[in-house]
Amino acid sequence: MRMRKKKHLHERLSHCSSLIIDDIFKYSGDIKSIFPDDLPLHLEIGCGKGKFICETAKKNKDINFIAVEKNLNVLVLAAEKIKNEGLSNVRFIAGDVNLLRDYETKTKCDIIYINFCDPWHKNSYRKRRLTHENHLKLWEKLLKQNGEIHFKTDNKKLFEFSLNSFSDYDMKLKNITFDLHNSDFSGNIMTEYEQLFSSQGEPIYRCEAIMRN
Amino acid sequence: MRMRKKKHLHERLSHCSSLIIDDIFKYSGDIKSIFPDDLPLHLEIGCGKGKFICETAKKNKDINFIAVEKNLNVLVLAAEKIKNEGLSNVRFIAGDVNLLRDYETKTKCDIIYINFCDPWHKNSYRKRRLTHENHLKLWEKLLKQNGEIHFKTDNKKLFEFSLNSFSDYDMKLKNITFDLHNSDFSGNIMTEYEQLFSSQGEPIYRCEAIMRN
Repeated sequence: MRMRKKKHLHERLSHCSSLIIDDIFKYSGDIKSIFPDDLPLHLEIGCGKGKFICETAKKNKDINFIAVEKNLNVLVLAAEKIKNEGLSNVRFIAGDVNLLRDYETKTKCDIIYINFCDPWHKNSYRKRRLTHENHLKLWEKLLKQNGEIHFKTDNKKLFEFSLNSFSDYDMKLKNITFDLHNSDFSGNIMTEYEQLFSSQGEPIYRCEAIMRN
Repeated sequence: MRMRKKKHLHERLSHCSSLIIDDIFKYSGDIKSIFPDDLPLHLEIGCGKGKFICETAKKNKDINFIAVEKNLNVLVLAAEKIKNEGLSNVRFIAGDVNLLRDYETKTKCDIIYINFCDPWHKNSYRKRRLTHENHLKLWEKLLKQNGEIHFKTDNKKLFEFSLNSFSDYDMKLKNITFDLHNSDFSGNIMTEYEQLFSSQGEPIYRCEAIMRN
């Protein structure tokens, strides 16, 4: 879904500047100090308009969250949501996830959320999928021992690909569901995309994959 | 699918008696001696009318196969297929798989095939599913180190259940496909059920699960 360019984008972003990490490399290997409290850290890759991260952070004030989003036109909406809620446990990284490749950190996170990422349908683009081995190497670097990836998608082919990819990477799979909204899973927080797809009767696929490192 | 009682069942079975292991407990811990050649061993649980085991054994004469089937009305068809093909690398166990619980063997098998087993829809019957932990313990006893279960079903809920069950049992999943007949998997041999379901446009789910013991 293409997002129309927001009016006064940079003015609006500047009002949320305290929530946006302008340069992660400044935090020389330890990003924890950016938060007022020393709490467990969760990461969302591609937070979109921020419904998921905002509701998750509101329900879990004993966890710090970092959300990565490269599209400033949606990032601004997510940041404004957090600001309006007055939440102190969320920060944003404005940029592509690949910039994290060069970031060395001793603050490892407990959970990485990947929600409704681009399926990159064409086989020739498979390396761009966020659950491809190339990205799993990056998530492994950022996760604690036994850290988890929580993955949701409406795309059956991407889900099939991802289960194989997680398993080939020797991650342990857990709570696999082919129809999240008609499953026993409780406490699900929907993203904007998820609301749209599931209202159209599309099943939502979800699983957790645990890093054995 | 209920199978009508075959006429002259016992007479027909007696013509195939050399293929049917009448008492596995006679083979005091080592069933290998039942075959003329000492080859790797594969097991099929619930072979039905035997299309899969017959075609698989014909293509793989360097492997010995044991097929378990409790319904004598279909077992007889499977045994007659093998006899007509003149195959020496297949034997049958006429009985419920649970009789294997008390069988201690030093001949471990490399692969167990579970094709289109009863999904036991009701949650209260889930322990009867052949991919439930209770059965995985039995397959573990029969499999070599890194032995594999090759699992096919047309039942989405059973497939979802089985992926979780394999993974919870700490088995490594491989080659997961949600639509076998439209996947890259080559060399698939169809069962009678599979032919029927797939001709009705039903997708076939398949995976391999490797025992880490």
